[in-house]
Amino acid sequence: MSIINLAVNTIKGLTMDAIQAANSGHPGMPMGMADTATVLWSRFLKFNPDDPNWPDRDRFVLSAGHGSMLLYSLLHLSGYSDMTLDEIKNFRQWGSKTAGHPEFGFAEEIVRARTCVAGVGNAIGMALAEKLMAERFNTPARTVVDHHTYAIAGDGDLMEGVSAEAASLAGHLRLGKLIVLWDDNKITIDGSTDITFTESVRARFESYGWHTLQVDGHNHDAVADAIEAAKAEQSQPTLIQCQTHIGHGSPNKQDSSAAHGAPLGADEVAATKALMNWPTDQTFVIPPEVKDFFGDAANRGRAAHGQWQQTLEGLDSTSRGTFQAMVSGDLPSDLWDALPRFESGTSIATRKASGSVLNALSNHLPGLIGGSADLAGSNGTTLKEFGHVGVDGFGPNARNIHYGVREHGMGAIMNGMCLHGGYRPYGGTFLMFSDYMRPSIRLAALMHQPVAYVFTHDSVFLGEDGPTHQPVEHAMSLRLIPNLAVVRPADANETATAWRIALERKDGPTALLLTRQGLPVLDGASEEGALKGGYVIRREANDGSPSAVLLATGSEVSLALDAAELLGPDVRVVSLPCFELFEAQTLSYRQGIIPPGTTRIAIEAGVSNGWERYVGEDGLVIGIDRFGVSAPAGRIADELGFRPEAVASAVRTHLA
Amino acid sequence: MSIINLAVNTIKGLTMDAIQAANSGHPGMPMGMADTATVLWSRFLKFNPDDPNWPDRDRFVLSAGHGSMLLYSLLHLSGYSDMTLDEIKNFRQWGSKTAGHPEFGFAEEIVRARTCVAGVGNAIGMALAEKLMAERFNTPARTVVDHHTYAIAGDGDLMEGVSAEAASLAGHLRLGKLIVLWDDNKITIDGSTDITFTESVRARFESYGWHTLQVDGHNHDAVADAIEAAKAEQSQPTLIQCQTHIGHGSPNKQDSSAAHGAPLGADEVAATKALMNWPTDQTFVIPPEVKDFFGDAANRGRAAHGQWQQTLEGLDSTSRGTFQAMVSGDLPSDLWDALPRFESGTSIATRKASGSVLNALSNHLPGLIGGSADLAGSNGTTLKEFGHVGVDGFGPNARNIHYGVREHGMGAIMNGMCLHGGYRPYGGTFLMFSDYMRPSIRLAALMHQPVAYVFTHDSVFLGEDGPTHQPVEHAMSLRLIPNLAVVRPADANETATAWRIALERKDGPTALLLTRQGLPVLDGASEEGALKGGYVIRREANDGSPSAVLLATGSEVSLALDAAELLGPDVRVVSLPCFELFEAQTLSYRQGIIPPGTTRIAIEAGVSNGWERYVGEDGLVIGIDRFGVSAPAGRIADELGFRPEAVASAVRTHLA
Repeated sequence: MSIINLAVNTIKGLTMDAIQAANSGHPGMPMGMADTATVLWSRFLKFNPDDPNWPDRDRFVLSAGHGSMLLYSLLHLSGYSDMTLDEIKNFRQWGSKTAGHPEFGFAEEIVRARTCVAGVGNAIGMALAEKLMAERFNTPARTVVDHHTYAIAGDGDLMEGVSAEAASLAGHLRLGKLIVLWDDNKITIDGSTDITFTESVRARFESYGWHTLQVDGHNHDAVADAIEAAKAEQSQPTLIQCQTHIGHGSPNKQDSSAAHGAPLGADEVAATKALMNWPTDQTFVIPPEVKDFFGDAANRGRAAHGQWQQTLEGLDSTSRGTFQAMVSGDLPSDLWDALPRFESGTSIATRKASGSVLNALSNHLPGLIGGSADLAGSNGTTLKEFGHVGVDGFGPNARNIHYGVREHGMGAIMNGMCLHGGYRPYGGTFLMFSDYMRPSIRLAALMHQPVAYVFTHDSVFLGEDGPTHQPVEHAMSLRLIPNLAVVRPADANETATAWRIALERKDGPTALLLTRQGLPVLDGASEEGALKGGYVIRREANDGSPSAVLLATGSEVSLALDAAELLGPDVRVVSLPCFELFEAQTLSYRQGIIPPGTTRIAIEAGVSNGWERYVGEDGLVIGIDRFGVSAPAGRIADELGFRPEAVASAVRTHLA
Repeated sequence: MSIINLAVNTIKGLTMDAIQAANSGHPGMPMGMADTATVLWSRFLKFNPDDPNWPDRDRFVLSAGHGSMLLYSLLHLSGYSDMTLDEIKNFRQWGSKTAGHPEFGFAEEIVRARTCVAGVGNAIGMALAEKLMAERFNTPARTVVDHHTYAIAGDGDLMEGVSAEAASLAGHLRLGKLIVLWDDNKITIDGSTDITFTESVRARFESYGWHTLQVDGHNHDAVADAIEAAKAEQSQPTLIQCQTHIGHGSPNKQDSSAAHGAPLGADEVAATKALMNWPTDQTFVIPPEVKDFFGDAANRGRAAHGQWQQTLEGLDSTSRGTFQAMVSGDLPSDLWDALPRFESGTSIATRKASGSVLNALSNHLPGLIGGSADLAGSNGTTLKEFGHVGVDGFGPNARNIHYGVREHGMGAIMNGMCLHGGYRPYGGTFLMFSDYMRPSIRLAALMHQPVAYVFTHDSVFLGEDGPTHQPVEHAMSLRLIPNLAVVRPADANETATAWRIALERKDGPTALLLTRQGLPVLDGASEEGALKGGYVIRREANDGSPSAVLLATGSEVSLALDAAELLGPDVRVVSLPCFELFEAQTLSYRQGIIPPGTTRIAIEAGVSNGWERYVGEDGLVIGIDRFGVSAPAGRIADELGFRPEAVASAVRTHLA
C-alpha cells in the first residue's frame, strides 16, 4: 500500500472506530473526503503544530462540520499535542476536545471556526483579512503575510443562502487566495441531491466571478493538480468540485445517505476494514509511517515558520509594532483618552454619536474595520478618513467594507475576519435585520469572538417605515443569547461607553442598539455606571427610600427622567444599558441600584417579557406587546403611551 | 401624450406628491418602474377589483416593498375601492392603509405579501401553490386554476440569501408561471451597485435553471414583448432584467441614490413635473382617461372572473367541494375525531408523535402540505401515504416537499403558499435552525398566516451533536415574537393537541417544539388544559395549598412530575405548553393554575430569563444559562441538574 493510501486508510479507520465507540457520529463525509484532505494536508497546507496560532499559517475551515472526525484525525496525525489519541477515543463525550461538531476553544488549532454551514462565509472573511494584512505589511523586499484559506464545504453549505451572499462578495473582491473544496458526493440527509438541488453549482460560482475546477476527489494526483491550478489563479477565488463517494470504501453504505449521520455498525466496519486490508481485530490503528508522513508536512511548516520569524524581525520597527498590536488585539493604553465627550443640553441620535466615536478611535486602532449591509449612512458606520475596500484597493487606507444587502453574509465574514486575527470588525444594519444574521451572532458568542454589531433604528420610533422595519422583540431576544453583550445606550455619552465595552471585550461579541431619532445628552450619564451595565441616573431626594424606581434603556431613559420630574423628587431612575454586564455585578451592587421591595416600573419600547426579572411580580412594565405602525414617530409615541405625561399617569395608577 | 405615458406620469405624480406630503418615503423605485408596472398591469395582469380574493387572479408581489407608492397608485387607479385617494394623501400616517412598506391586512388586494426582501421567496411559494392546485383540479375539459405570479424585485432582494435559496428550488421545480421583473437600476442606498454587486445575475439565475431576458424597462413595447416571451416559456421560471433609471424623470436626482429613500423636495418635484408636462400648481392629479385605461384592464378581469365562475360551477361536485374547502381553509367538522390518542405507560419522542398525528390527519385535510429542510426523517414530517413534489410530479398525490438545506427559503415559500390560499403548509428543521428562518417566521406572524413549524431536537438533550445544534435561547426568543404561538408539548398527547392548536389558528403561525428523545406518555395530560396553554397536571393532595408549584414545559414536565414524587403529595405540577394561549386566558383562570403567593419553581432546558413572569421575584428558575455540550444526553442531564433528585434537592434548598 502506498504511503498516501496508508494515510487515507488510517483516517478512515480512526473515523469508523471513534464513531463506533461513541455510537454516534457522521462517518460518510470523513471517509469520502479522506483522499482529498490527505493530499491537501500532506502536500499543501502550511502549518506548525508547535504554534497553532502562527499568524501566517494557512487557514483550514471544515464548513461541513459534521465530518469532524476528519479534522480530529488530521490534527492528531499531524502532531497537534492537544489532540491526543485519548481525545479521539473520547469522541463526543463530556469534557473531551472532540465534540460532534468542531469546538472552537478546544480543537481550535488550524480550524478557527465552529462550523455548520457558516464555514464558507467564515473562510471568505479569513481570506479577506489575509488580503488586507498582506497589502498593509508586505513590501517588495519582505513578505510577512502570505497564506491561503482552504475550506471543505458540503452540498448543504452550498445550498444555504449565507454562503451565496458571502461568495458573491468574495467574487466581487477577487479573493484569489481562497480555495473551497466542494465535497460533491451527491447525497444529503434526505437522499440524493437530485431531489432538490439540480442547479449548476459551478456555473453559479462563475457568475459570482469565481474560478472553478472539477476533479475526481479520490484521485490524488488530480486533486493535487487542481489545488496547484487554484493557487496559480490569483485574481479569483476558486471552487474545486471534488466528485466523491460518501462513505467511500464501505461495501454496503457507500453512496447512500445511510452513511451520512449514523455509525456504520460493527459488521459494516469489519467488512470495510477487510476490503481496505486493514486490521479487523484492532481499533484506532495508526501505522508509524503515517505519523512520519504527516510529520514531514509539519516539519515543512516549522521551517517556514522559522523563516517567517526572521522576515518579521527584519521589518522596520513601526510596522512590526503595528503588526504585533493588530495580531494581539491589545488596545493602546491611552485609547480611552480619544473617546469623545458630548455636552449636555444638546440633542444627538445615538447612531450619530456612534459614528463620531468610531471616527475618533479610527486612527488609534489600525485593526478597526467596519461596514454596513447597504445602510452605511443610516448606521453611521463609515470611517471618514479612510476609503472603501475594493473600490479604493486593499491597502491600509481602505477600512470600510460595502457588504451589500447581505446581512447574514456580513455576519459570517466578520466572524471569519475576527477568527483570522488582526482585525476588530464591526458591521451595521437596522436592528430589525439582526434577525437575518442571528445565526452568525450566535456563532460569534459561541466562538468567543469580539465582533461588534451596530444595530440602529432600534425601536418603533423610527416611524414611517412601519412594522416591517420596527423592532419590538429584538432587544430582548438578543439578550437571551449567552455571551452576547447587548448595550442600549441612553444618550451620546453612554454610546461612547458602549464602544468601550465592545472594544474591551476579548471573549465575545457586543451588539449596540442605537436610535434613529435625536436624544438629549443627559447630565447624569455615568461611564462608570454604564460599564457596570446599570446605575442610578437620577437619585431620589429622600436618599434610599424611593417612592418608585423607574428602569429604562436607550431612548426611554430620557423619557423616564421626564416622567420622574412630573412624579416628584422621590422617584429614582435607573439606566440599564446592558443586562449582561449588570448580571455580572455583585448582588449587593445590583440591589443597591434596584432595591428589592421597592415599587419598580420598567419602560422600554419593546416586548415586556424578560423585564419581570427586575420589576418583580408586582411591578409594571410599560412595553410594546404588539407589532408597530407606520406613522410619524411622535404620533406613535402618543398612541402607545411613550410620553412623560402618559408614563407618569401609568406610574401613579400603578402606585395607587 | 399617449395614454400609457399619461398613466405612467400619473403614477409618478401621485408618488412624488404622496411622499412630499408625508415628508418621508422612497420615490426612486416607483418612478423607475412606473413604465414596466404600467405595461404589466394594463396589458397582462388578471385581476378583479370587486373581488380581491378571487382564487384564480394573477398574483403580484412587490418584493421591493419600499416602492409602496407604486402599488398604492396602481390599486387606486385600477379601482380597488379600499384604496381611496384620501388613503394615498395619508401615506405613512397613523391609521391609513398606506404604510411605508405594504401592509398585509390593509392594502392586501393583489399584493398578498408584506414585503422587504422576502417577496421573491413568497412569489415562488405562490407559483408552487398555483402549479399544485392546477395539477389537482384542472381537467382536459375545464381549467379552474391558471394564473401567473409576478414579482418586482430590486437589487437588494437579489443580493439576499433567502431569494437565492428559493430561486434555486424554483428552478429545480420548473415553476414556469413565475415571472420576476428585476428593477435593475444599478443603485442601492450606499451608491452604485458596482461597489459590491458585480456578479452576473442572469448567469446566476440560468445556473438555477431559469429562463432570463433583458429589456429596457422604459420601453413599453419591449417590456410587453418580454412578458409575452416569459409567458410562452412554460417549463422554466423567468427573470426579466429591466434596465431602468431610479427616479426616472427627475432632472437632478435620476440615477442617484439620493432618489432612493428620501422625498425629492418641492423644487425637484416641480422641476420633474415641468419636464414631464405635468401641472405644477396641483397635486394628486389623475386625468379621467387614466382611470378608464386601467378600468379596461379591470373589466377584462371582471369578464374572466365571470367565465371562471361558470367553469367552477361545471366542475363535478366532489372536486368543487374540495376546491372550496381548500380555498376557504375551513377544517372538516369531525377532524379531531381523527386525532390519535396515545396510551400512557409507553414512551415516545414528541417528534415521532407529531409524525403520527400528521399522517393520521393527512387524508382529512387535502391542503395539508409539508416538508423539511433536509431533515424529513428526523423531523417526522413525511406524509407516508403521499409522494414528493417534483420527484413524483405535482398531482394530488405529491404532498411532501424536499426543501433542501434552505431553511430561510422554506420559510418564505411557506408564507407564499399560505398567502396564495388552498394550502396549510408546515415545515421542519431542528429548533436550532429556526434562527436561519426567523425573519420569515416574524413575517408570517405579522401577515397573520397560519403556517406551522415543526422544530425538533428542542434542547441540549439531543446530545452528542453538541452546542452548534443544541438550542438554549430559542424557545424563549420565539415566544417574544408577537402573534406566534409557541407550543412545547409535554408528551405525545399534548403533541396531538399542539397540532389542533396549529390547525385551528387562522390568524397566525404556530411553532411546535419537539423532542428528539423519548418521553413517557403522561396520565394527567389534558387536551382541554393544553388548549388553554397551561393547566395543572398533578394536583396537590391538600387541594389549594401547594407547598410548591413546579412549572414546566416539554420534556421537563415528566421530570417535574418525577421530582414532585420525591418532594411529596403537596406539590403541584403545571404543564405550560403555550405561553401565548395561557396569556389569553382570564386572570382568574391563570391564578387558579399558578396561585400568586405560592412558592413557584420553573424548570425548562433553556435560558431562565422570561420565566420570572410566572415564578415571581422570589421564585426559582432551573434553566440553562450557558451554551450546551457535546455528550450523551444522560450525562448532560446529570451535569446540568436535570434529574429528579437534583431538581427535588434544588426545590428543597429553595424552600428552606
